[in-house]
Amino acid sequence: MDMNPVPQLMPGQLLARGVSRHLAGLGLVTVEEFVPVRGLRVDVLALGPKGEIWIVECKSSRADYMSDGKWHGYLEWCDRFFWAVDTEFPTDLLPTDTGLIIADAYDAEVIRMGPEDKLAPARRKVMIQKFATHAARRLQALRDPEMVLG
Amino acid sequence: MDMNPVPQLMPGQLLARGVSRHLAGLGLVTVEEFVPVRGLRVDVLALGPKGEIWIVECKSSRADYMSDGKWHGYLEWCDRFFWAVDTEFPTDLLPTDTGLIIADAYDAEVIRMGPEDKLAPARRKVMIQKFATHAARRLQALRDPEMVLG
Repeated sequence: MDMNPVPQLMPGQLLARGVSRHLAGLGLVTVEEFVPVRGLRVDVLALGPKGEIWIVECKSSRADYMSDGKWHGYLEWCDRFFWAVDTEFPTDLLPTDTGLIIADAYDAEVIRMGPEDKLAPARRKVMIQKFATHAARRLQALRDPEMVLG
Repeated sequence: MDMNPVPQLMPGQLLARGVSRHLAGLGLVTVEEFVPVRGLRVDVLALGPKGEIWIVECKSSRADYMSDGKWHGYLEWCDRFFWAVDTEFPTDLLPTDTGLIIADAYDAEVIRMGPEDKLAPARRKVMIQKFATHAARRLQALRDPEMVLG
């Protein structure tokens, strides 16, 4: 059991860690800092056993949330969209038609499911292919750090 | 540049490392020790940018090859099948209707392309989903080693 915070992670990344742990328990696998299209970078992209795609944006503070002008752009890349915030966050700020996850660095809980807006099959296929590529590249970089990417 | 062998890897895993490096240069991402179906475990599963699936079996010696009674079972899970062996391996042993890669721990080269036998779309979809899940789980285990999988 690790009860110590991991100092090299930023507050949003600590939330992402708790989110990934919880989603793993629900049967979804995750990658972080995923770029669905140039100019967008999602905090957590989750893939379910039937190819479901969820996006979770992690907000460590009110200021972090208020400065995010891009989140509407994420909706078209997922079946369900969620915010992940800590217990201190003023959740009244968040749109009620988005999902809500309360998280810390160790775990998380889905408080409100994001409403489902299903991806078209062609886009889902692209997203799963990109998820696979992203995960494998990151894994490869950790497994073989001396590899020179061509 | 790492010019030292990695002592904790087995000979077959060293070949797999060189294979993964070379395939990355060709634009394919890889995972190792992938289980397409219970009872089968492939050394290297590669995914190309258009969803192409290649399987590479790494054989460190004649004995290693001769004791493999399962390789025919891999063919139905990929578009192309390859053997990866080192320069000392007696390649005349290998069936000529399979692909051939000469590898070491640092790099590899495709000597003979495996003939293409395309997966059915439904199976390709399953394989890409499994590839994504496998890669993300392994990545997660490295990124967050203290996570308790539910």
